[in-house]
Amino acid sequence: MKYDVLFGGVSFEHEISIVSAIAIKKILGEKIESFIFLDSEHRFYLIPADSMKSKFFSSGAYKKCIELFVGQGGFYKKSFFGLNAITPHIVLNLIHGADGEDGSISALLDFYKIAFIGPRTESSVMSFNKALTKLFARERGVKVLEYALLTREDSKNVEDKLSNLKYPLILKPARLGSSIGVSVVNEPKEIEYAMDLAFEYDDMILAEHFTSGIKEYNLAGCKVKSGAGSEFAYSIIEEPSKKELLDFEHKYLDFSRTSQVLKADISPELEAKIKESFTALYENAFEGALIRCDFFVIDNEVYLNEINPIPGSMANYLFEDFVSMVDSLAYSLPKKHNINVSYKYIEQIHHAKGK
Amino acid sequence: MKYDVLFGGVSFEHEISIVSAIAIKKILGEKIESFIFLDSEHRFYLIPADSMKSKFFSSGAYKKCIELFVGQGGFYKKSFFGLNAITPHIVLNLIHGADGEDGSISALLDFYKIAFIGPRTESSVMSFNKALTKLFARERGVKVLEYALLTREDSKNVEDKLSNLKYPLILKPARLGSSIGVSVVNEPKEIEYAMDLAFEYDDMILAEHFTSGIKEYNLAGCKVKSGAGSEFAYSIIEEPSKKELLDFEHKYLDFSRTSQVLKADISPELEAKIKESFTALYENAFEGALIRCDFFVIDNEVYLNEINPIPGSMANYLFEDFVSMVDSLAYSLPKKHNINVSYKYIEQIHHAKGK
Repeated sequence: MKYDVLFGGVSFEHEISIVSAIAIKKILGEKIESFIFLDSEHRFYLIPADSMKSKFFSSGAYKKCIELFVGQGGFYKKSFFGLNAITPHIVLNLIHGADGEDGSISALLDFYKIAFIGPRTESSVMSFNKALTKLFARERGVKVLEYALLTREDSKNVEDKLSNLKYPLILKPARLGSSIGVSVVNEPKEIEYAMDLAFEYDDMILAEHFTSGIKEYNLAGCKVKSGAGSEFAYSIIEEPSKKELLDFEHKYLDFSRTSQVLKADISPELEAKIKESFTALYENAFEGALIRCDFFVIDNEVYLNEINPIPGSMANYLFEDFVSMVDSLAYSLPKKHNINVSYKYIEQIHHAKGK
Repeated sequence: MKYDVLFGGVSFEHEISIVSAIAIKKILGEKIESFIFLDSEHRFYLIPADSMKSKFFSSGAYKKCIELFVGQGGFYKKSFFGLNAITPHIVLNLIHGADGEDGSISALLDFYKIAFIGPRTESSVMSFNKALTKLFARERGVKVLEYALLTREDSKNVEDKLSNLKYPLILKPARLGSSIGVSVVNEPKEIEYAMDLAFEYDDMILAEHFTSGIKEYNLAGCKVKSGAGSEFAYSIIEEPSKKELLDFEHKYLDFSRTSQVLKADISPELEAKIKESFTALYENAFEGALIRCDFFVIDNEVYLNEINPIPGSMANYLFEDFVSMVDSLAYSLPKKHNINVSYKYIEQIHHAKGK
């Protein structure tokens, strides 16, 4: 199986995506046929493999590469005779944050019938907006922490809205994957500033109680075909290294990881509970994607923290045989239900009119 | 204000969309600059105004029109010198059902920075999937009828899943806007057939109790700028004409309406309740769209039945001054939060390495 790696995108995780693509290049090597960069102007460029260095992008040198256009069945380059297709492979969507994880890129690829590994539009929307993730998880029987939503219309009744939550609070823009715009609020008088900050990035804010000592476990995986049916390919469960908040620099390093990590030391019962929650979230939603779910464990109960539908460097470091698993996933992409466009009623009406 | 009407699309409502576009042509007349047709192959065509007749599409005659390509800032046509932009106007998204209402077209238009009237991707997803609409409405304090979800994994415990619902039931594919794949089930032995039918169209089925005598009221509207703030422009509330199920032929006629209807005869209290529910559903979700919400009223309580984020012929017949309202909406389109792509961390790392 051959892949085209799609990375970049107009998001606060633009450079994180570059780092992620460079890490995937190390892992998948010759299996990658093309690197396709989406720049800050929403233009696509075909990047030669030996130019896959972070400075090539930050310096703007990529702009001398061939520009690509999306069209039916794949990407095209301009030629003397119009637009010429470049051979289509399976696209790996490695655009983190906005564009890649908000449903835009998946809609574009689906519209133009380009096969890809990554979340589809509906599940992107559900995992990108933290408020919708709460509804989605609860509906599937997975616990989430108590929360409140704040919009600009709430400026007068904020304390009322937050009355069910214990201080300190954490306020986050509902639709940003990174820690940008996030504040920890220790007392009511700090709320206004935290809201102003978050509203710079989104019109909706999610507020939760903030606990620093909480146990966290990450599990990645995907559903792949197996014989006539299908099965889940799970990663090891990782206990991520602790920080008060996962800041951007820390995340940057995290996204470039290519070496294996150690399995968390947890009971088989807890491991089973985490896998059960993962499966409940994945099925009939994330087919075609390799996702990572980040869980909290409180009093032996599993709570969903967030779903990363495109984890940094595809969470390769959590899998024993990452390459074979990606190949299996590539053979397990979901098919859309066929829709036949018909003109039955128009034809009936014309027939009735005798035309 | 000038408009480009976008219609067609790969959906079971393809021909309904053609009818809708023809109806809008009658209403908006000279304000429409271009008609852009999306055919069954996901190709765009520029249709001359005098060819806007249903037979032009059903006969395939449209294929002789100029093909358009979507790119940064608008639609393009091929020319001797490459691709030439056609002047961009505000696009009216009139693609009903899949493509237009599932978040695909909105993602495409947003990605290429084309201004449009219609639902954005997140709210499209929430209104297109009937199961997500239930979660969305409840979260906003709007009542919905009890329901159950069925997936293929439920084939062994269907009766268990449906145990909270009273017969007769109505089973619907979760993600189809039309009445295709919908069955009324009078007793348990009919369920298997109804599920098989619905699974032809979707992997998720929504089941509800089916009541035939229920009161229905429709309200359309949008949020428009007004002075420094904004206000809601509501349509009259309509009591739609009764049918056991809104079948496809009935819907066809419904979508071609251009003449005013009568206001439903309801109390001011009920009218206020319906408007309040509409507002709760619209705010911070459907900005930029003219939507119609269809409500049930049971024992004087308002329940959401469904959200039509692109109602047939834009529900023009429910408004007194439809044309001015569309113009106001065109001036009130939501702005995306600005995202500045930065290379801060890449630059810091290169600086630290002394490169």
